[in-house]
Amino acid sequence: MISREEFYDAQGKAKDYLARAGIVITPEETKNIEVADFGLNELESIGLELVVYVNTDRVCAKELVLFPKQTCPEHRHPPVEGEPGKEETFRCRWGQVYLYIPGEPAADPKGVPPSGREDTYTVWHEVVLNPGDQYTLSPNTLHWFQAGDDGAVVSEFSTRSRDESDIFTDPEIRRTPEVG
Amino acid sequence: MISREEFYDAQGKAKDYLARAGIVITPEETKNIEVADFGLNELESIGLELVVYVNTDRVCAKELVLFPKQTCPEHRHPPVEGEPGKEETFRCRWGQVYLYIPGEPAADPKGVPPSGREDTYTVWHEVVLNPGDQYTLSPNTLHWFQAGDDGAVVSEFSTRSRDESDIFTDPEIRRTPEVG
Repeated sequence: MISREEFYDAQGKAKDYLARAGIVITPEETKNIEVADFGLNELESIGLELVVYVNTDRVCAKELVLFPKQTCPEHRHPPVEGEPGKEETFRCRWGQVYLYIPGEPAADPKGVPPSGREDTYTVWHEVVLNPGDQYTLSPNTLHWFQAGDDGAVVSEFSTRSRDESDIFTDPEIRRTPEVG
Repeated sequence: MISREEFYDAQGKAKDYLARAGIVITPEETKNIEVADFGLNELESIGLELVVYVNTDRVCAKELVLFPKQTCPEHRHPPVEGEPGKEETFRCRWGQVYLYIPGEPAADPKGVPPSGREDTYTVWHEVVLNPGDQYTLSPNTLHWFQAGDDGAVVSEFSTRSRDESDIFTDPEIRRTPEVG
């Protein structure tokens, strides 16, 4: 659980990154920037800041902000209620992001798994996304991603988000946000 | 059918508008910018420039560029093959766009329907979208939109796009692109 101060600080920084990417959000959206620490209280290394534009039964669109070297931990989106899992496209808008998926492992990966949790990062095929680059993930595919040295802003286009159904490799992770 | 010159000119201008909005696209995407004149050969007043990022069975995301006062003509997305029609969210990124949908007509609308085709613009409830503003349309809802004086860049997040199924109010419209 992160502190209130850390939460507001992360929101403020996320807003600055979005501005650098030329992305305009409303005052209401700014107030509602989600800060996900995945229940680990190591936000600087493991976390994600999100602006959810729309999330209906059929379609979801968000902006994701990653601070420098911040990691979204390994997870997958399983089938739910007879629907295939979430399908998502990540499009880098600003900065650089290293995306890891199943396949031939990178010989010299740019990403570094969070210290002490290396065992919970199991897929190592590397896709480097610079601004304008994108990658579409099939449902139920294990993946994790990490920003480069400057951080990153990434648009996510997907089917409905059901964060509570995500399956993380690290058993200590709790996706539901909690703030102190 | 627009001329080759007009097509390349529109692509070049669309790229400039995207750059003004801070949106990076790849050289491949630049080459593939779609120029829709709706078969009317009045591109300056009726048309749309599109970059399609992704369009799978489930999800579609695009950037739409509208030149100053350019109009996307009135249409709706009907149910297809047992699926409800396309659901779409328009989010203004740059400039200003006037969106018209069913409901109480605007007393003094900002948008002006293309000259000589006024009869094919039948919904007049006005939603003005400035950067950061968005609107989600239910499937099969009649709508049309027009950029303000500076043009507009609009992100569209939707279910699968099947342009060939769209139903336009103006019977002269042909959605399939043709270039001379």
